Amino acid sequence: MNYPKGIKKTNNINPVTKETSYKNRGMTLEADINISNEYYREIDKAYIYKKPTPIKITKVDYPSRDKATIKEAFFTVPSTTDYNGIYKGHYIDFEAKETKSKTSFTLSNIHPHQIKHLENIERHKGISFLIIRFTVLNETYLLPTKQLMNYLETSSKKSIPLSYFKENAYLIKDSYNPRIDYLKIVDHLMEVKQ
Amino acid sequence: MNYPKGIKKTNNINPVTKETSYKNRGMTLEADINISNEYYREIDKAYIYKKPTPIKITKVDYPSRDKATIKEAFFTVPSTTDYNGIYKGHYIDFEAKETKSKTSFTLSNIHPHQIKHLENIERHKGISFLIIRFTVLNETYLLPTKQLMNYLETSSKKSIPLSYFKENAYLIKDSYNPRIDYLKIVDHLMEVKQ
Repeated sequence: MNYPKGIKKTNNINPVTKETSYKNRGMTLEADINISNEYYREIDKAYIYKKPTPIKITKVDYPSRDKATIKEAFFTVPSTTDYNGIYKGHYIDFEAKETKSKTSFTLSNIHPHQIKHLENIERHKGISFLIIRFTVLNETYLLPTKQLMNYLETSSKKSIPLSYFKENAYLIKDSYNPRIDYLKIVDHLMEVKQ
Repeated sequence: MNYPKGIKKTNNINPVTKETSYKNRGMTLEADINISNEYYREIDKAYIYKKPTPIKITKVDYPSRDKATIKEAFFTVPSTTDYNGIYKGHYIDFEAKETKSKTSFTLSNIHPHQIKHLENIERHKGISFLIIRFTVLNETYLLPTKQLMNYLETSSKKSIPLSYFKENAYLIKDSYNPRIDYLKIVDHLMEVKQ
């Protein structure tokens, strides 16, 4: 589970190991996408945002009108994907995940209703996909929903092998600005659809 | 500020008055929109969701991998609007607000960057609008962003009078299912744009 920036764990297990592993892998996929989306907005190219983390709030301290503090809340299962927005008049929707595996992406990382959601978007003429990063290999792929569905319909495996990404997904190259230019691939997807 | 369902205020001021006022006005606009969006999804008409409440999490208790509890968090100013999604291949985006006033809607209820966001969406060929309910009158209006911008450009007032809604917005009639059929008006907006 990814937690937003600035979280303090009150019960931090093994903080040294954690810190080291973050240093090694550089920026997270989420940070790369957020900074790319900011860049797209700055140049008035696309308006794509990350949705807030879905939580269930169970206790709020409310000492005065403007000073509400949430005192108890829980992370809940998201009903949709993390990112959506508009590009060239098209509805864009995607989920992004990292894996430490060098060989495959485990499908249990995506909730079944998120896959259903991506399929709904595609059927209603939106553009939906997964962005998957193999962190150890430093390879980031855009897998269109159509190719994801093809895999799910023909395979009973619980993970998608790297080879399937190499053949059916698009490698997103790192760049300076935007850090990951996934809209370049979306341009291609639009061309193919027309 | 609207809090999600099921919130317990640990410091509840005047609970009797609150309860009475809720009984009088029936379901909130937010509840009506959520139930309408659920209906649209059930009949595979549109996929429009409310975004989670944006919060800044500052403390998480993390006793084991699956049992994270947020122990401190704050409501933050949303960077976008509350609702977005897809309908007939179009990107839909809107903000919804209630007012107790019988004569006008105070503009300070909408953050300036939310207005900017609605404008961005419109410029990029999405369909964006406000849904404003005058709770005492039990009248709910859909105000397209274009008409909102027209008002802001020609008036220096800090609120939009009800008369402007009557002349430039669309009254959304209550119905059983969906409770507020705002997509009927979106259909009309699409026709006008073509």
